[in-house]
Amino acid sequence: MEQSQLTDLLGQMTLDEKIGQLLQITGDFYSDKAEERTGPMTQLGLNEDDLANAGTVLGVTGAEECRKIQTAYMKRNRLHIPTLFMGDVIHGFRTIFPIPLGLASSWDDEAAETMARVSGHEASVSGLFVTFSPMVDLVRDPRWGRVMEATGEDPYLNGKLAAAMVHGYQGDDLRGDTSRVAACVKHFAAYGAAVAGRDYNTVDMSERQLRDMYLPGYKTAIDAGAKLVMTSFNTVDGIPASGNRHLFRDILRREWGFNGVVISDFGAVKEMISHGVAGDERDAAKLAIKAGVDIEMMTVCYLRNLGDLIESGEIPEQVLDESVMRILQLKNDLGLFENPLRGADEAEERKVVMSQKHRNAARRVSEESIVLLKNEDAALPLDAANTVALLGPGARSTDLLGAWSWKGEEQDVTALDASLNEAGFQVQTTDEIFDYLDPSQQAIDAAVQLAGKVDVVVLALGEPSFMSGEASSRSDIRLPQAQIELFKAVQAVNQNVIVTLFNGRPLDLSDVQPAKAIVEAWFPGTEGGRALADVLLGKVNPSAKLTMSFPVSVGQVPLYYNVDNTGRPYENDPEGKYVSKYLDVSNYAAYPFGFGLSYSSFEYGQVEVSDSSFDAEHPLEISLTLRNTSERAGTEIVQLYVHDLVGEVVRPIKQLKGYQRVTLEAGESRRVSFTLSEQDVRYVHLGDRLESDPGQFDVMVGPNSRDLSEAIRVELF
Amino acid sequence: MEQSQLTDLLGQMTLDEKIGQLLQITGDFYSDKAEERTGPMTQLGLNEDDLANAGTVLGVTGAEECRKIQTAYMKRNRLHIPTLFMGDVIHGFRTIFPIPLGLASSWDDEAAETMARVSGHEASVSGLFVTFSPMVDLVRDPRWGRVMEATGEDPYLNGKLAAAMVHGYQGDDLRGDTSRVAACVKHFAAYGAAVAGRDYNTVDMSERQLRDMYLPGYKTAIDAGAKLVMTSFNTVDGIPASGNRHLFRDILRREWGFNGVVISDFGAVKEMISHGVAGDERDAAKLAIKAGVDIEMMTVCYLRNLGDLIESGEIPEQVLDESVMRILQLKNDLGLFENPLRGADEAEERKVVMSQKHRNAARRVSEESIVLLKNEDAALPLDAANTVALLGPGARSTDLLGAWSWKGEEQDVTALDASLNEAGFQVQTTDEIFDYLDPSQQAIDAAVQLAGKVDVVVLALGEPSFMSGEASSRSDIRLPQAQIELFKAVQAVNQNVIVTLFNGRPLDLSDVQPAKAIVEAWFPGTEGGRALADVLLGKVNPSAKLTMSFPVSVGQVPLYYNVDNTGRPYENDPEGKYVSKYLDVSNYAAYPFGFGLSYSSFEYGQVEVSDSSFDAEHPLEISLTLRNTSERAGTEIVQLYVHDLVGEVVRPIKQLKGYQRVTLEAGESRRVSFTLSEQDVRYVHLGDRLESDPGQFDVMVGPNSRDLSEAIRVELF
Repeated sequence: MEQSQLTDLLGQMTLDEKIGQLLQITGDFYSDKAEERTGPMTQLGLNEDDLANAGTVLGVTGAEECRKIQTAYMKRNRLHIPTLFMGDVIHGFRTIFPIPLGLASSWDDEAAETMARVSGHEASVSGLFVTFSPMVDLVRDPRWGRVMEATGEDPYLNGKLAAAMVHGYQGDDLRGDTSRVAACVKHFAAYGAAVAGRDYNTVDMSERQLRDMYLPGYKTAIDAGAKLVMTSFNTVDGIPASGNRHLFRDILRREWGFNGVVISDFGAVKEMISHGVAGDERDAAKLAIKAGVDIEMMTVCYLRNLGDLIESGEIPEQVLDESVMRILQLKNDLGLFENPLRGADEAEERKVVMSQKHRNAARRVSEESIVLLKNEDAALPLDAANTVALLGPGARSTDLLGAWSWKGEEQDVTALDASLNEAGFQVQTTDEIFDYLDPSQQAIDAAVQLAGKVDVVVLALGEPSFMSGEASSRSDIRLPQAQIELFKAVQAVNQNVIVTLFNGRPLDLSDVQPAKAIVEAWFPGTEGGRALADVLLGKVNPSAKLTMSFPVSVGQVPLYYNVDNTGRPYENDPEGKYVSKYLDVSNYAAYPFGFGLSYSSFEYGQVEVSDSSFDAEHPLEISLTLRNTSERAGTEIVQLYVHDLVGEVVRPIKQLKGYQRVTLEAGESRRVSFTLSEQDVRYVHLGDRLESDPGQFDVMVGPNSRDLSEAIRVELF
Repeated sequence: MEQSQLTDLLGQMTLDEKIGQLLQITGDFYSDKAEERTGPMTQLGLNEDDLANAGTVLGVTGAEECRKIQTAYMKRNRLHIPTLFMGDVIHGFRTIFPIPLGLASSWDDEAAETMARVSGHEASVSGLFVTFSPMVDLVRDPRWGRVMEATGEDPYLNGKLAAAMVHGYQGDDLRGDTSRVAACVKHFAAYGAAVAGRDYNTVDMSERQLRDMYLPGYKTAIDAGAKLVMTSFNTVDGIPASGNRHLFRDILRREWGFNGVVISDFGAVKEMISHGVAGDERDAAKLAIKAGVDIEMMTVCYLRNLGDLIESGEIPEQVLDESVMRILQLKNDLGLFENPLRGADEAEERKVVMSQKHRNAARRVSEESIVLLKNEDAALPLDAANTVALLGPGARSTDLLGAWSWKGEEQDVTALDASLNEAGFQVQTTDEIFDYLDPSQQAIDAAVQLAGKVDVVVLALGEPSFMSGEASSRSDIRLPQAQIELFKAVQAVNQNVIVTLFNGRPLDLSDVQPAKAIVEAWFPGTEGGRALADVLLGKVNPSAKLTMSFPVSVGQVPLYYNVDNTGRPYENDPEGKYVSKYLDVSNYAAYPFGFGLSYSSFEYGQVEVSDSSFDAEHPLEISLTLRNTSERAGTEIVQLYVHDLVGEVVRPIKQLKGYQRVTLEAGESRRVSFTLSEQDVRYVHLGDRLESDPGQFDVMVGPNSRDLSEAIRVELF
């Protein structure tokens, strides 16, 4: 449709029809079976007209089902405006990729794009038009269960990965290419900063920190063209996001020029009553519409109250019209007026969903997401000459998909033991299944007994998937106690223990530090068992690096690499008394941001800069020679960090400004170059000015945020 | 002096003399012995003229010494402007009172005033004119070592106690009464909110939270007339406090009308170089003077650079003159021009310092500060019919003064064992001294052996004093490991264990929960051993209540009672899945804010309100009958909490709005009344408006923040 047709269409709509566009309900309401609809309809108090007008549908998939609903809906809707199917496709549809925190560990924009492309394709043929991804919430607290859905603690990396996902979902021609879905950037804003790492808890920070650290990732994703933005559950500056005009009207729409659709998170409009900023649903509707929330997910504050708010003059009808137009435009951008079923196609669905191509793609990304944290005495890869026992709760587990994988199926997963067998490696196991939290004494005894008889033990530990994800925060970030005891018992009888981990957050791994090797496999997805097996066997050389610090203990939290300068810096004098420190533990992570090992070894040559100064017209080139000094091909992620020495506002001690995945054959060398421009070092000054500080900067390059080259001092003019 | 004389005096001062007034150095520089002065003078690069002009002196005491310095100084200073002696008198001078966190547990404004009165008197006769107290930093994180110097997590209580201290130090006639000292409110602002509880670390919060929670306590203390304010070490909104114009010029001076002296914390002006907002000392001086910092403590950025900054026109001389005038006015307010030695008097010093009267006062306050956390089976008070062993590191320790007690002496302390003996109660002990952190095996064995032979064990545990205070943060807030093991070993042989605690922060006490009774004695000061003995023996009935939550574990931190409403409240449905919670621990404290037991029992009668509504002219009266239902006289701290149901901005789930210490004889009843006015429920709305929300409020009364009466709903018109 042309814009003029959309305008005409809007002009024909009744007030009720307009308000209906703003309502999102689940597919239950459109069930064939009356008895399945009755409950939900009664609960929300909806009648058949409401259903005929509701603008979007949440969480229904399947080409057949979606086609059926759309066809019936189009008949009932007076103006034949199609409905729009949305759902949470977060790290895969049926073919599940690693959780986002794992995916991010690849530091591979292409991997992120591939995940989104594959997931979006599977989703689109299954009838979805919009996915609620990417989540770009910067995270610093591993207690928060939803870190598994995040990409880490760095705004630059978060933004790059999110932009790649947006492009993977939407492609370059969303309207023409029905295998694409629209992306929804979430959760605006700062959902990842919940006080004490407790999901849904208060968020509070200065607007400067919000703009400096938390907003840039969202902005990069939005600049990449994402069609929707979702509100977060939390408050920002004391106002729940879903009623926060400053966030949505001032920043998102006015400053950033976002013209797409804003959707509330599940129930978040009505939750403003619990937040105590709305006395009733009418207040909540008023706050949300004033803030610029277009679609209300799963509550009916708009449906029940917008009419009255408009009639009473409290809300100008123009405000409603703008929201409706944005929704109509989204539908038009998706080509729904011409093609209301879009990619939903049962034949395609059978062909595309869980295709071998998709499985292969997932396997590649899983391989890139597995982080080798420790590898003493080259304990890995496994040596076929040794006898190896595979023990622990992860050994046979198919709980490898992680949270937010509702369409994924464990039956598609090949567990680690089967994957090793499939790869032709013989491991011994016990008959007993070892529970993640509450193993039987029999299972423990059998494991310890076998451990004593073999050369090497691979102990597959971790968290069951329900321990991370939404509403799954933990105050204790150690491994579950039973596993710590299992580790100790096994370690007591065998000094060659290799720990593998399936889990959804940075953990305190102090208890398993005696292990020879530690492999962080996250929840690696459908093909994750095979990917991990290949890493253990050396068929895949690990290359991933952490995007979130692993603390020594929860007592250091929040812990992140890009901390601000203090007046009494620890870095300069860690043994000093009057520096910012603890008495009982260092300020550093056990495994820092950017850290990960390889079976190869890499030598970083002298870092060189193209000039001793730079300015707005003349960026710096920073380069070095990287050499693979091992006898094995491998990939290194080379990282560029910058420290702004004197700022108008206190600056971080270092900030990531570039990264490159460099694959080198055994013995191969290559020149690696980064560009640093004046624009790269801008930040929010006093009065919200986005500027750089003329003066000195330190430039550092290295394999992680800790082990960096000596700083090279450059000057910005 | 009259103001006109001060103006004349300022007019006679050279630029160097003016700048000298802004410098604070230690007493070393004025030592009789040239060799003691040489080092410091060389280090700061000071000459004799600088010393003759330096306006104030830090940390020297003793009537004789101060008189000597002042007399010599007056001769050398061209205009005979006296110098001014300042020092850290925090919870006692020589007679040490409980640490502020203990003092606060008394919820007794009079106790706070007494502490300040006594400390100020001892300080003044010893030559000090200004003390760097009260500290009014709101604290929520027990990892921070300096919580010991704070009064807790509530802005209202913090403000009340700080105001009482200001009055205790300054009295009503600071000029006329030379037994008084001027008070310095610190640390402006929000020093208590260091990220991850690490001293000197970044502070970041919204200005709304700053104004709502952190600033009110300082303001109450400043409104009480405090003469000075000290800058904090941390950043506020990305700018170090000592260079933060918004904090000092906009808020403190313009909004609050503070006309007193602003002094930097130790070295904090120069530390702006480490903070990376100043390139050198000249930048640091410029930022600090622009922010309105009058006195630079212990660095010489002003001394070296203000002249040049003024001559270059970067800083108007008027700005310097204003600072100098504020310092001259402070000296005049203290009567120094007429009486430069003020209260410094060796005869008085001998009479006043550590007088029996002062010891008695300290003992009363210590008694009021000891919190009974648990008392199962009425294990306390001790029964003379039982055999009792006193074991553990605190049994004979005189390390009861806590940090910030530099003039206190352990030799003045009567340890717990001696105090019990003095009170006529026979306890058995071992010969071995038990170290807090690293006890000998012999000591452990002896303790366990004796524990097995007696009816009751009093196990005196805790932290040595160096584990709290400035630069003494801990990531682990459990008791030191050796003590946990001692407790377990003792508990294994004797089920009647009473734990007493000397420590400086809220602890995770999970490990000693099997104890029959737990007594939190903090660092109780010079008379603390006797006070604790009297509590254990029942000669004193404990009445104190916590002013900071004791978490179940460090994984809950920050944990505080006055949390904001969330959209998915735990309180309504703690077993629900999609509420703000952890999987592994409740959201609640082990011992909540306001909690503390008594040997008496109190019955709270029905709470009544004078009306169902209130407005700006008609406050509410809230009352109930409190009855001592026990056979023992006791004191209960009755607490009033209010919940603003619907705010323009998200409000806390409850907030303390009143408290009363009520002493009742056995069986006695008394009517207890609170007044709640419209002004009491104002807070910072959008646009920084200090207003109330018309609408509904819940009013609750009870013995602590958790166990409250059923809410009474009232309406504000």
